[in-house]
Amino acid sequence: MRVLGIIVEYNPFHYGHLYHLRKSIEKISPDYVVAVMSGNFVQRGEPSIIDKFARAEIALKSGVDIVIELPLIYSIQDAGGFAIGAVGILERFGVITDIVFGSESAREDVLEKIANITIVYKDQLQKEIRKGMKMGLSFPNARKMALKNLVKKLSISIDPSIIDIIENSNDILGLEYIRALNLYNSKIKFSCIKRVGAKYSDEEFKGRFSSASAVRKMLELSNYKVLDHLPEISREIIKREFDSGRGPIFYENMAPLVLGIMRTMERKDFSKFYGFVEGLDQRFSKFSRQAANLKELLELVKSKRFTFTKLRRLSLYPIFKITEWLIKESNRLGPQYIRVLGFTTKGRELLAIAKKKSSIPLISTPSLYEKVLLKVLKSKDKPVFLKKDLYIEQFKRDVMATNIYSLFYKNPRYKKGERDMRIPVIQML
Amino acid sequence: MRVLGIIVEYNPFHYGHLYHLRKSIEKISPDYVVAVMSGNFVQRGEPSIIDKFARAEIALKSGVDIVIELPLIYSIQDAGGFAIGAVGILERFGVITDIVFGSESAREDVLEKIANITIVYKDQLQKEIRKGMKMGLSFPNARKMALKNLVKKLSISIDPSIIDIIENSNDILGLEYIRALNLYNSKIKFSCIKRVGAKYSDEEFKGRFSSASAVRKMLELSNYKVLDHLPEISREIIKREFDSGRGPIFYENMAPLVLGIMRTMERKDFSKFYGFVEGLDQRFSKFSRQAANLKELLELVKSKRFTFTKLRRLSLYPIFKITEWLIKESNRLGPQYIRVLGFTTKGRELLAIAKKKSSIPLISTPSLYEKVLLKVLKSKDKPVFLKKDLYIEQFKRDVMATNIYSLFYKNPRYKKGERDMRIPVIQML
Repeated sequence: MRVLGIIVEYNPFHYGHLYHLRKSIEKISPDYVVAVMSGNFVQRGEPSIIDKFARAEIALKSGVDIVIELPLIYSIQDAGGFAIGAVGILERFGVITDIVFGSESAREDVLEKIANITIVYKDQLQKEIRKGMKMGLSFPNARKMALKNLVKKLSISIDPSIIDIIENSNDILGLEYIRALNLYNSKIKFSCIKRVGAKYSDEEFKGRFSSASAVRKMLELSNYKVLDHLPEISREIIKREFDSGRGPIFYENMAPLVLGIMRTMERKDFSKFYGFVEGLDQRFSKFSRQAANLKELLELVKSKRFTFTKLRRLSLYPIFKITEWLIKESNRLGPQYIRVLGFTTKGRELLAIAKKKSSIPLISTPSLYEKVLLKVLKSKDKPVFLKKDLYIEQFKRDVMATNIYSLFYKNPRYKKGERDMRIPVIQML
Repeated sequence: MRVLGIIVEYNPFHYGHLYHLRKSIEKISPDYVVAVMSGNFVQRGEPSIIDKFARAEIALKSGVDIVIELPLIYSIQDAGGFAIGAVGILERFGVITDIVFGSESAREDVLEKIANITIVYKDQLQKEIRKGMKMGLSFPNARKMALKNLVKKLSISIDPSIIDIIENSNDILGLEYIRALNLYNSKIKFSCIKRVGAKYSDEEFKGRFSSASAVRKMLELSNYKVLDHLPEISREIIKREFDSGRGPIFYENMAPLVLGIMRTMERKDFSKFYGFVEGLDQRFSKFSRQAANLKELLELVKSKRFTFTKLRRLSLYPIFKITEWLIKESNRLGPQYIRVLGFTTKGRELLAIAKKKSSIPLISTPSLYEKVLLKVLKSKDKPVFLKKDLYIEQFKRDVMATNIYSLFYKNPRYKKGERDMRIPVIQML
């Protein structure tokens, strides 16, 4: 039995995603396809255009058999944390045999080699990276420089210039996926598919081959014609969501909440949350009072050392109370549960198998999340990495994220919270 | 020299307010008129329709010589705390000789007698009030019942039925003003003016004699014609504010912030703030997730024991971090500074006198608030009730309140914070 695992955000689902899905299936010929998908907040540190339930539905109608939610604590982390969560879910689901990810370079050999270097020479590398960041480089750039220096110094049989391939976001993520597979001692095989069309971050609209960023940009400008360039299923469901007043939702909608919370915080209050280091506590505290909106906030806080994406993610941490403990424990112990958002008839078969193979609790009825945990905690093969408090803190964040997300729906009837507890798992039977 | 002190909210300024002002001046023939006015958040637990700067301007153009801001910590408390703040400011300003307040009954003698009973028989009364509240009565009703019983039991020479006069909000406030004057051992004389027209809480629109509530209600329904029924100065300034995109601002505008903050709080987190007792922590926590807006929130949380106004005020406490310590210390030690929002030419004369007479720091340039404090702390007649930490915590809340309020302006350019630090004291010279 071959089971393909993919890691996605589908924000929103476009032809590039469909291409990746089809090519991966062609490559692996799997019996089942499982997607781990970011929930209502994505790695760019913003709410998804439409909610996780609708995005899961699109995935299930496009060839995915099971959609699992990536817990918030991983979905709004940097590439490293994101990968620990996503790969951890696929690994602990217990039935995945292959992971395929998109890559600008599609150089599996190089990515694997670099991943190994970062593992074997971890300490030297960290020292070098810190040096680079002190010089004002952002983390990605500091790492690239550190890697190049290391490769030269150690005369590793790799052309230093090839390290430039880890410049693009999919390769950066790919590298982290490989590192995470190693971390979990996973037997899952990985392979790449070369990305076609626009770059991830390309905001220019290019028809069918536009990036998700470009599509979101058009939507933000109220140009809904852009939906015509999406696969039919995606287009229909997105239109249905918009017509019902459940989207589109943008980061800027969060301004009263993000600025409001920050304006009632003092500099020292920021230190309760992860990542407000190197003066970022001071900058966020000061500029949340000066900025009139979130765009201005990020522009004011921005420095060479931090990317906009990193700052956007950080801006969510006080809202969701993302503490250092929660991040460190989550990255040390990995995801604590598998929250199934939806499945097809085929997916249901696989779920029955995974129920026996999965090493962490499967949650398909969120209101029972504590019961499910207790059952596993009582069993004799309770895994060492499953911790009650971490499980609860991770899961609460997902429910919290949905409760916050709901506030931004245009239609008042959907602003009611606890949707996670009310919306049943999607069954596409 | 006679100086009249009045306690106002002017939300918004209507003919009833103008009548009260003129009648008070007629009664006292003062040399100067000083108003203590709630800042951007008023005693009903909501933002004011237009901001404190505009409301101060209206007051100065209508016969008031100096407008002082009532610190947030008092403006969003119940009648007792509100009075401790407002009367404390007038007392500590050092030059006020008379206070006149509006009253439904205008029975100064009865109000004074009842006030004295509540002071002399404080303990018995508190026991009785607690009993009534256990039976499910709201605080005002429990107090009324307790007072009646006490008056009967002690055969005090007062007709128990007369206690019914403390049913209306102005009499309730009046009672608290008298109690506060007593608390401060004040030499300020008080008197009443009978209110004309609609009751404070009357929401029905009745032309010139409408209550502020009725006017706000009409504005909430986008009926701006109601402004024609306000005094000219008030009408003009309100229109200017609306046209500039600085209003009207309603409680419901705060929904993303109030619901957002509560939805990320657990039941136990509420106990950090004052007043979430008797299950209110549980009710706010639960219903903030169920409610789609603030109206729904309050309706869901409401029980016989709590008034809507009390619940609305409470809903602001997590935002402004109103702790038990802050409330108790503020009510024990009284206001710590006098923040002047504006003055006329005459008011400037009085300010020069008050500078020498006032027992707490006068702040007319908010950015210098710490300097002003240090100067007084160093002086040898530093008052015992002036505490550095309380002073700072009180003042920070006022700045915070303005920074939050600014988020709700419609015009983005005014959403920038720190208006308290940028807008100079209003000089109507």
